[in-house]
Amino acid sequence: MPGADRAGDFRARIRRGERRAIARAITLVESARADRQALGREILDGLAAQTGGALRVGLSGPPGVGKSSFIEALGLRLIEAGNRVAVLAVDPSSPVSGGSILGDKTRMERLARSERAFIRPSPSGGVLGGVAHRTREALLLCEAAGFQVVIVETVGIGQSEAAVRSMVDFFAVLLQPGAGDELQGLKKGALELADALVVNKADGEQQALALRARAEFERALALLPGRDAGWRPRVLAASAHTGEGVAEFWQCVQEHHAAAQQSGAFAEQRRRQDREWLWTLLREGLERAFLQADGVAEQIARLEAAVAARQTTPAAAAAELLARVDGPPARR
Amino acid sequence: MPGADRAGDFRARIRRGERRAIARAITLVESARADRQALGREILDGLAAQTGGALRVGLSGPPGVGKSSFIEALGLRLIEAGNRVAVLAVDPSSPVSGGSILGDKTRMERLARSERAFIRPSPSGGVLGGVAHRTREALLLCEAAGFQVVIVETVGIGQSEAAVRSMVDFFAVLLQPGAGDELQGLKKGALELADALVVNKADGEQQALALRARAEFERALALLPGRDAGWRPRVLAASAHTGEGVAEFWQCVQEHHAAAQQSGAFAEQRRRQDREWLWTLLREGLERAFLQADGVAEQIARLEAAVAARQTTPAAAAAELLARVDGPPARR
Repeated sequence: MPGADRAGDFRARIRRGERRAIARAITLVESARADRQALGREILDGLAAQTGGALRVGLSGPPGVGKSSFIEALGLRLIEAGNRVAVLAVDPSSPVSGGSILGDKTRMERLARSERAFIRPSPSGGVLGGVAHRTREALLLCEAAGFQVVIVETVGIGQSEAAVRSMVDFFAVLLQPGAGDELQGLKKGALELADALVVNKADGEQQALALRARAEFERALALLPGRDAGWRPRVLAASAHTGEGVAEFWQCVQEHHAAAQQSGAFAEQRRRQDREWLWTLLREGLERAFLQADGVAEQIARLEAAVAARQTTPAAAAAELLARVDGPPARR
Repeated sequence: MPGADRAGDFRARIRRGERRAIARAITLVESARADRQALGREILDGLAAQTGGALRVGLSGPPGVGKSSFIEALGLRLIEAGNRVAVLAVDPSSPVSGGSILGDKTRMERLARSERAFIRPSPSGGVLGGVAHRTREALLLCEAAGFQVVIVETVGIGQSEAAVRSMVDFFAVLLQPGAGDELQGLKKGALELADALVVNKADGEQQALALRARAEFERALALLPGRDAGWRPRVLAASAHTGEGVAEFWQCVQEHHAAAQQSGAFAEQRRRQDREWLWTLLREGLERAFLQADGVAEQIARLEAAVAARQTTPAAAAAELLARVDGPPARR
């Protein structure tokens, strides 16, 4: 009976790599309607065993650094080498209509035309957590559809970089040379997250600047503790304009992947990311349920004001709120 | 009636600065017994308006870097200038008996002998959250007792640096010169948290090494984005042995304080830290209550294993757990 197992239908088509099914499933997952969301979840839950098969690469960079050109050049190269490539985005500033500047096919026209590329704009919505959640689900759907590489891009607003870092295997930050040796676009915290820094637009007059900035950053990185025993972040120079550096970047990604697989770090990172995601969702759900209870929002507002006025301590305020679930305060 | 208002008694004595009352109140707060904890909380809750008056300085550094000597030299200088100084510690590895190496009066004998110093070892307990919580309460009690400066030290294990950073106004990391230009003791993430890096043991043979390492780090820090508009982390050289650098360090702390007060950043950071602490305690309490419910621990273990085996997605697992509190999964 048609419609009797809509989720099953979707799954079969997604596993066959049908673009339209992938796109519609992502739309369901992004939907504000509970029934559509539920169908999206049902589709994805039955595909769990088909997920995990792509190499996940995160790419952050400020507007104007040339992210779209870089992704396009990278994507075309990967496709030429036989891969199917998906490009997703996390952009909490994306308006509900009008679309994000990320994942904008018009900025990656040549890539968008390829049958082996799948480009999807960021879910809209304004709240990073919700956007990142739906992007993760889109990533899993793309994997179930057999894509070998999934790129997740972000402009790096707020905590988007941390959100993307938590769902990818390799995280790179694109930068451009500034007026001095500094690199524009390096946000606080991004340095700790990055597996590679890519100095973009390293062509023409910018080249000398870019190479000098790269040298400075390599020296700086050498002074900082390595993230883990195996990998020290690299600084690369690239020019999507001339195509230089893109191959070198992918070479770097592959070297990292090979080393991480050999050491077990790859699998361990995936496990840790999945486990942390489960707990993030669980904690967010507990908080959401608590906040929805009668009178809680008002009580919190009142207590936050009392804390700010030093009429009560944060611990006393928290204990008063937790009396609703706990009874007497639990031992810490 | 004696004993009728034990909490009130305590508060009066603490406000008068009585060391014994401070120490006993901290012990109550650290107690594993519910009744003593409750009295500790009652004492502190009534002192909320008397908190906030000290300058809170965090100091992290690996064992052997000379933290105790540095703190002693700093503490004596501050006392000489008319201050009363408290030294607390966050050390999750501190055993239940035997004491931590931090806050160990035998390592700061001269300081410990001063009437105007109050040194307290880290609460024991093994779990960072619990230790940090009790240290925060001890900090507030010291403030209510009128101390002008509260130093919180940590060896920097795990997330202790982040925990200390979240309860102080100024956070410094102590390092020592290594074999090359690198500085030993700089943990990943500490650079982002630090308002100052102090290269210690910059005397004798070490001096040239220390100064070179300092120069390299200053260059590296210049390449990184500033934490906020107002303050770029400083790199200082110090030798508790000769006493050099300690005055310079305090000068740095005061300059930071003056600038932060002028810009409003000081008050804003305090407000943010208090608010974040309230929410941290609230979320931890919600999670604790949930985990204590019947069957939850087993269900979580089962679902974590299913996620690791890719039999289900993290989102589906979280939704199953949240059905206990939510009913149907809420809209994200």
